Amino acid sequence: MSENKTFHYNVKFNIFKDEARFGPGVARLLRLVKENGSLTDAYRDMGLSSSKGWKMIKKAEEDLGFTLIVSTVGGADGGGSHLSDEGELFLKNYESFVSESNDEIEKIFNKYFI
Amino acid sequence: MSENKTFHYNVKFNIFKDEARFGPGVARLLRLVKENGSLTDAYRDMGLSSSKGWKMIKKAEEDLGFTLIVSTVGGADGGGSHLSDEGELFLKNYESFVSESNDEIEKIFNKYFI
Repeated sequence: MSENKTFHYNVKFNIFKDEARFGPGVARLLRLVKENGSLTDAYRDMGLSSSKGWKMIKKAEEDLGFTLIVSTVGGADGGGSHLSDEGELFLKNYESFVSESNDEIEKIFNKYFI
Repeated sequence: MSENKTFHYNVKFNIFKDEARFGPGVARLLRLVKENGSLTDAYRDMGLSSSKGWKMIKKAEEDLGFTLIVSTVGGADGGGSHLSDEGELFLKNYESFVSESNDEIEKIFNKYFI
């Protein structure tokens, strides 16, 4: 199929215990919090209302069984958010899993669609 | 992370020219039409209304630039649906792409989450 030269793909990875809840959206939220230390900024960057963003995180935490994000209120730096140790490790593993998988997927895609 | 023993993943593959429209849903519809020769049965099996199912197919066809499903009305066999030649080939390539990718993804998943 010669038109296939212009095909693209996208792949969404979800990791879960019971229900698919930790996917690209929550991963991106965590990545932004890790980089900027602010949940509010992360919601804004992603165009999410804080109630919707908070729900995504809570549902993922509920499914995974551990806390992903820790928020502090007030204090010398005015408060902020950071990843829990488990959140850090989980995000790292998720990102490695996605990135290595994408390397393999790209090779296979090119076999069938280029 | 020892709790990771119980983690699962799921991966959704979309293929498209401009917009992600050929994904697991349309692929499953095509697979059912290929097996049973009926769009109506395919919608029912997937719990889709016919207007929703039809829209999924039309949008995928629009994005890909070719017809996926051909329907005949009446005739000796009372009509039915089958895949176009391009639909057959595309489904075959999509399914091979997904299945080979899943084999690789599983190995990578086990590196990080088992």
